[in-house]
Amino acid sequence: MTTTAITGKNYIGNKLSSKGNKTYTTFNPQLNKENDSIFFEATINEVNEAIELAHNAFKEYRNYPGSKKAVFLNAIADEILNLGDDLIHMYMSESGLPEGRAIGERGRTVFQLRSFAELVTEGSWVKATIDTAIPDREPLPKSDIRKFNIPLGPVVVFGASNFPLAYSTAGGDTAAALAAGCPVVVKSHPMHAGTGELIASAISKAADKTGMPNGVFSNLNSGGIEVGQQLVSHPKVKAVGFTGSIKGGRALFDLAAKREEPIPVFAEMGSINPVIMFPKALENRGENLASTYANSITLGTGQFCTNPGLILGLKSDSLTKFINSLAQKIVAINPSCMLHPNIVAAYESNKAKAIAQEGTAVVGEYSKETQTNYASQVITTVEGKTFLENPTLHQEVFGPYSIVVQCENIEQLEQIISNLEGQLTGTVIADNEAANYPKVIAALQNRVGRIIFNGVPTGVEVCPSMVHGGPYPASTDSRFTAVGVNSINRWVRPFSFQDFPNELLPNELKNENPLQILRSVNGSFTKQEIK
Amino acid sequence: MTTTAITGKNYIGNKLSSKGNKTYTTFNPQLNKENDSIFFEATINEVNEAIELAHNAFKEYRNYPGSKKAVFLNAIADEILNLGDDLIHMYMSESGLPEGRAIGERGRTVFQLRSFAELVTEGSWVKATIDTAIPDREPLPKSDIRKFNIPLGPVVVFGASNFPLAYSTAGGDTAAALAAGCPVVVKSHPMHAGTGELIASAISKAADKTGMPNGVFSNLNSGGIEVGQQLVSHPKVKAVGFTGSIKGGRALFDLAAKREEPIPVFAEMGSINPVIMFPKALENRGENLASTYANSITLGTGQFCTNPGLILGLKSDSLTKFINSLAQKIVAINPSCMLHPNIVAAYESNKAKAIAQEGTAVVGEYSKETQTNYASQVITTVEGKTFLENPTLHQEVFGPYSIVVQCENIEQLEQIISNLEGQLTGTVIADNEAANYPKVIAALQNRVGRIIFNGVPTGVEVCPSMVHGGPYPASTDSRFTAVGVNSINRWVRPFSFQDFPNELLPNELKNENPLQILRSVNGSFTKQEIK
Repeated sequence: MTTTAITGKNYIGNKLSSKGNKTYTTFNPQLNKENDSIFFEATINEVNEAIELAHNAFKEYRNYPGSKKAVFLNAIADEILNLGDDLIHMYMSESGLPEGRAIGERGRTVFQLRSFAELVTEGSWVKATIDTAIPDREPLPKSDIRKFNIPLGPVVVFGASNFPLAYSTAGGDTAAALAAGCPVVVKSHPMHAGTGELIASAISKAADKTGMPNGVFSNLNSGGIEVGQQLVSHPKVKAVGFTGSIKGGRALFDLAAKREEPIPVFAEMGSINPVIMFPKALENRGENLASTYANSITLGTGQFCTNPGLILGLKSDSLTKFINSLAQKIVAINPSCMLHPNIVAAYESNKAKAIAQEGTAVVGEYSKETQTNYASQVITTVEGKTFLENPTLHQEVFGPYSIVVQCENIEQLEQIISNLEGQLTGTVIADNEAANYPKVIAALQNRVGRIIFNGVPTGVEVCPSMVHGGPYPASTDSRFTAVGVNSINRWVRPFSFQDFPNELLPNELKNENPLQILRSVNGSFTKQEIK
Repeated sequence: MTTTAITGKNYIGNKLSSKGNKTYTTFNPQLNKENDSIFFEATINEVNEAIELAHNAFKEYRNYPGSKKAVFLNAIADEILNLGDDLIHMYMSESGLPEGRAIGERGRTVFQLRSFAELVTEGSWVKATIDTAIPDREPLPKSDIRKFNIPLGPVVVFGASNFPLAYSTAGGDTAAALAAGCPVVVKSHPMHAGTGELIASAISKAADKTGMPNGVFSNLNSGGIEVGQQLVSHPKVKAVGFTGSIKGGRALFDLAAKREEPIPVFAEMGSINPVIMFPKALENRGENLASTYANSITLGTGQFCTNPGLILGLKSDSLTKFINSLAQKIVAINPSCMLHPNIVAAYESNKAKAIAQEGTAVVGEYSKETQTNYASQVITTVEGKTFLENPTLHQEVFGPYSIVVQCENIEQLEQIISNLEGQLTGTVIADNEAANYPKVIAALQNRVGRIIFNGVPTGVEVCPSMVHGGPYPASTDSRFTAVGVNSINRWVRPFSFQDFPNELLPNELKNENPLQILRSVNGSFTKQEIK
C-alpha cells in the first residue's frame, strides 16, 4: 500500500544499517495477515554504535540554543507531514486503527513537536534562578550563584504499542528529550516497525537539513527484549522513557536500578482509572451516563491508558438501572479491531480470568460473531466486599472491559479507593453532591495523578496543566508527567554556577538576559537585566 | 554537662517509648569516652507504630494551608533555640566539633526552617498551572485543567553523621518534607542520638503547641541497620531522604527499588570535588592558593561533603611550587578532632589504601603526635596517567586528605575529568584564561552539580539558586537538590483537576486566587484572578 520504500533497517545516526541475521515482520490485524516488509533486529554492535554516536552528539547538542533545537523540532514535524498518506496507510496496516485516528494522532504528534519548539524558543523553561552576591555580608560574604536546567545525556525511548505516533518514535518522550538537549535512541515497537522507520526517516532527514550532529537520533529495530535490555544497561545512557505494560516497565526500571550508575526510568504503565458515580447523578441521568461510558469504554477498542476499567457506585435501584443500561448500550456498539493478535489474546485471557473470579457476574457481553482480531466488549459487576478482598479484580484488562462495583456504603467506597494501586486518573460523577464526600475525594486524590469531574478519563489534553502519570504502578515516578511541555523536566537536572564571570556564563544566566527569558532574580520573577 | 534530661527513648508521635532491649550509647571523641545516656533501639513494633501514625497524620496534615505549616516550622525553630546551651553542649559531646561550629550549624538549621516557613506562607511554590476551558474549540471542546504540587506521603529521613543539626533530625530534609505536607519519621543517627532526642523533643513540643496531628513527626533510635531497612521497606512510607556514605545510600536505594511499590530515595553521598588549577592562576598566586586550599581541606577536619579531595593541574614549575607550598602550609595547621573513633579508623584505613597505590607520593603529612581521635592531614601527588588508570585513587578519603594530580597536557586533564564519577562540585581556578579551555569546563559541567569559580567548594550557601546534588554517586537523583528551598520538590508530585467546580478546588487553584500566589494561567505568570 505504501510508496515510500521500507528498508527494514536500523537508523544508526544518519546511516541505514542491517548487520544482524534476526528478522521479523509486522502484522495487519484487519486483514489478519503479515505485512510484507522484513525488519532487521539491531545487533549488540549496532546498539553500541548508536549509543556512542549519541554520546558524542551530546557534547555538541547539549549546548545548542533553544532556537536551533526548535528549528530541528519543527523540521521533524514538517518531514512527518511530508510523508503524507504513506504514513497514514502504514500506520493503519500495522495497528488496525482507522484512518481518522491515524490522522488525529499524527496531528497530536506534530502539535507536540511544535509545542516543544515553542517552549525552547521562548526559553524560560530552564528555570533560571539567580541570587546575586553580597560581598559585605557578615560574618561571610555571599557568593553570586546562578542555576538553570541542563540535559542529562542520551535518552532511550521505548515506543508504545497503543500510540504508534504520539508516544513512539517521534512522540512525546522523544520530542521532550530532544527539546531538553538530549540525543535520543529509540527502541522501535515491533508491532509498528514500518511506521517507526518512516518516522525515523523523517527525523533523520530533518537532522540532516538542519545541521544536527550525527547521532542526535537513532532508531533500533527489535522483535524481542534483548535490544531494550542492552540499551538500558549501557553506561552511556542517562535516562529512559517507556510507555507500556507494568511487567515491561518494571523490568526496565529494575534493570536501570541495578546498574553501577542507576538512571531514572520514567515508565507510564497500567491503570484502571476508577470512576465514582455518586447517587444523585445516577438518579438524575443514569441513562445518559450509561451512553457516555459505553462509548468511553469502547473508544479505540479500549486500548487507551486512561480507559475507565472500574466504575464504583453505592448499591441502589439507580445503580442497578445504570448497570443494565450500560450493558445494553455497550453490546449495541459494533466491535472494532485490536492492535495485534497478541493483544487480542491477552485481552481474552485477562477477561476470562476476571470473569472467573468468585462473585463476578457478567451483565453485558457482545456475543455475536466478530471479525478476527476484533474485541468483544464486556461489562461485569461485583459486590464491594468481593472486590475489596480480591486483588485480581484490581488488575487491568487492557481492552473494552469494565467492572462495576456495587458498594454497601460510602465507607466501603472510600476503603476500596484507598486500597487501589496508583492510577493515572480518577473520575467523579456528581450532581451538587461532591461536597458531601470530602473523604472519598481526598482518598481518590491520594491514589491518582488527575481527577476529572463529570467527564470521562479518555482524551488526554496536551497542555501545561496536564498530569499524565501518578502513584506507582501508573508510573514509576509520580513526580513527573509524561504529557505536556512539563514532561521535559524528566530529562534535565539543575546546575549551579558560583561566582562565574559573566562572559563565560550561558546566555540564560548572563546579566544582560540576552534571551529575554523570565528568571527568578533574588526571589522575584523578572525579565529585567541585572545591573 | 546537660540539664535537659535525656531519656534515651524513641518519640513515637508525641509519646516516649522504649519497648526494646537493645541499647547503645554515644561517644565523646574529644574526651575519648562513652557518654552517659543509654539509648533504646526502636523495635519493629515501634517502627510500625510510628509509620501508622504518620500515615494517619498525613490524611489531615496534607491539607493544611501553608500558613498553618509555617507556624509549625517556626515553632520548631523557636523550640530549638529554647534548648539553649544544653543543645550546644550535647552537640559538642557527641561530635567533637567546636562550639563555634555548633552555634553556626544551629543557626543554619533555624534559618532553613524559617526559610521553608516563608516559602509555604507565600505559597507560590506549589507551581499552580491553569489552562482555562475553551468550550467551543473544534473538533473537541477544551476542558478546564488546573495543576499544583501535592505531598507524596510519609517521608523517612536518615540523619547525617557530619551535620548533627543541619542535615539530621530537624535538618534540611525534615524541614522540606514538613513544608511540603509530608509527615516525617527520622532514623536518628547513632553517633548523636542525644542531640537527636533534644531536637525531637523540640519538634514534639512545637507540634503539640501548634495543634499538629499526632504522628506528624517521630524519632527512632537505631544503633544498627535494621530499623532503617524496616522503614524503607514499609509500604506506607512514600519517600526517603539520606545523607551519608555511598555504601549506605546505595543499600537504601536498592531496597527502595526492590519494593512492590518502588519509592524515590534522595541520597546525597560521596564526592571528591575536583579543583582545576589553570596555569596562569598557579603562576600568579600559587602561594595564596596553597593557603586557601590548606584551610579548605582541613576545614571541619575535612568532614564536609564538599571537601576538595582532588586537585588537578598541568605539570609545570608553578604546579610543583604549589604542591610544596600546600604541603608546608597544611602540616602547619593544628589537627582537629573527628566525629567518632569509627570515622577516624575509616580515615586512617582509606588514607593508607590511597597512599599505598603505585605511583602515589606523600608530599605533606602531619607527623607529630596528636590527641586520640584527631586526624593527621595528608597531601599526596600522582601523575595524570597513574590517576587515570587507577580507579582506587578516585575514591573519597573522608577527612583532611587531598591528592594533587599532575597532568601531562590539557587533553589528559579533560580525559581525567570526563572519567570521574559524578560529583557534587567542581572548582575552576583561573586568571583570565578560563575562556581558553571550553572543553575542560564543559566536561566538568557534565560531571558535577555546581561549578565554583576562583573559590573553594566548602561552604554551601542555603539559597534558591543552590544545587547540592549531582550525577551519581554524588546523589541518587541528579534532578533534585538537597539544599535550598527547591529541595521541597523531592517530596511532591504534580496533580491535575479537570473541570472541577471552583468551590471544591483547593485555594491555590480557585478563580479568585485567594492566596494571591503567582500562577501560570494560559501560559502567562500572574497573580490576577480568573474572571
